[in-house]
Amino acid sequence: MTEKEILRHVDHTLLGVAATWDEIRAIVDDGIRFETASVCIPPCFVQAAAAHAAGRVPICTVIGFPNGYNTTAAKVFEARDAVQNGAAEIDMVIPVGAVKAGAFRDVEAEIRTVKDACGGKILKVIIETCLLTDDEKRRLCGIVAAAGADYIKTSTGFQAGGATFADVALMREASPDTLKIKAAGGIASFEDAERFLALGADRLGTSRLVKILKNEAQHGD
Amino acid sequence: MTEKEILRHVDHTLLGVAATWDEIRAIVDDGIRFETASVCIPPCFVQAAAAHAAGRVPICTVIGFPNGYNTTAAKVFEARDAVQNGAAEIDMVIPVGAVKAGAFRDVEAEIRTVKDACGGKILKVIIETCLLTDDEKRRLCGIVAAAGADYIKTSTGFQAGGATFADVALMREASPDTLKIKAAGGIASFEDAERFLALGADRLGTSRLVKILKNEAQHGD
Repeated sequence: MTEKEILRHVDHTLLGVAATWDEIRAIVDDGIRFETASVCIPPCFVQAAAAHAAGRVPICTVIGFPNGYNTTAAKVFEARDAVQNGAAEIDMVIPVGAVKAGAFRDVEAEIRTVKDACGGKILKVIIETCLLTDDEKRRLCGIVAAAGADYIKTSTGFQAGGATFADVALMREASPDTLKIKAAGGIASFEDAERFLALGADRLGTSRLVKILKNEAQHGD
Repeated sequence: MTEKEILRHVDHTLLGVAATWDEIRAIVDDGIRFETASVCIPPCFVQAAAAHAAGRVPICTVIGFPNGYNTTAAKVFEARDAVQNGAAEIDMVIPVGAVKAGAFRDVEAEIRTVKDACGGKILKVIIETCLLTDDEKRRLCGIVAAAGADYIKTSTGFQAGGATFADVALMREASPDTLKIKAAGGIASFEDAERFLALGADRLGTSRLVKILKNEAQHGD
């Protein structure tokens, strides 16, 4: 794949706690310039980012993020609020404690309720793989698909581990074809990006690939 | 101070991402047994915890947590939702990016709006000291007080640093007497706890002190 083809699968991401609007605007501009799939930014910047992007790149944001233990009502409010502010894609975090308690039906019901609140926009469901057993990951692939979400996503980037090749392979094998996969957390090179895509990921959450190209451009390559 | 006196200043806390209801219920039971100021738990467990506690210990929860970059509308919804579910105390996180951009008026307006949404319940405002300069910390003491919050709080426990003696001393000096201080993040001994209180903290967010007493009890001390 060419770098350009890989970038079409990238959610160009800035979710740092101290990010300012100037930094977010630069991410939006880079998403437009490098034709990424979307830019993924904090909820409080969605309205301004959508106005600034003016349709040139889809705005993705996060809800129940990064800990996932908000109430379902709060996640629903956040999803509606984000869509109203101009978000085209929503990345939500599941309640990991419910998984650990075996309450998979509650997890499925919550995802379905949030999907309804997204009003047709893309919903990605972060399962935070680094906290889960392989059995839990496999079971969640079926649940996320059954609940009607568009993507299952590996990681928030705020826990100990990010995306691994093994997890993406497991998720591809355990998910129906209709459920797409997003790998996120620690993706730092075009080589790794291509391998994640070859293993069955459709989206990659990272800021590094665009940074690599900008650094190359600065050095005259 | 006696251990019992110190515990009266403790928000006995469990905010781990994978915490289950069984673990949260045990925290509530320990808060009742050791007579802590409150128990601080994730929003999705507030309703069940409030029912279980039945007034024997106040329930504290977190909103806009831990990243603080949710919309103000979402924080307001979360605060109302938490109070409706039985929370007596709300710990919110400020938008750190707004501080970094110098938008202190926006930060103050957001805190005031959330305080209104708390309907008379206690509001603590987490400024995440480890990400701030001393000047920003000082300025925020005045802003948090002016906005009508009850407490200024050092840390979420989800960033690189927690409460320090220097920060609590700075915050006490820079805050009006009416604004109370909560130190949180990494408080691991009764000695440290007493020092934080002597420096002017009124609340301490930690689970370690109760754990120490339980371990001592187990070993027959």
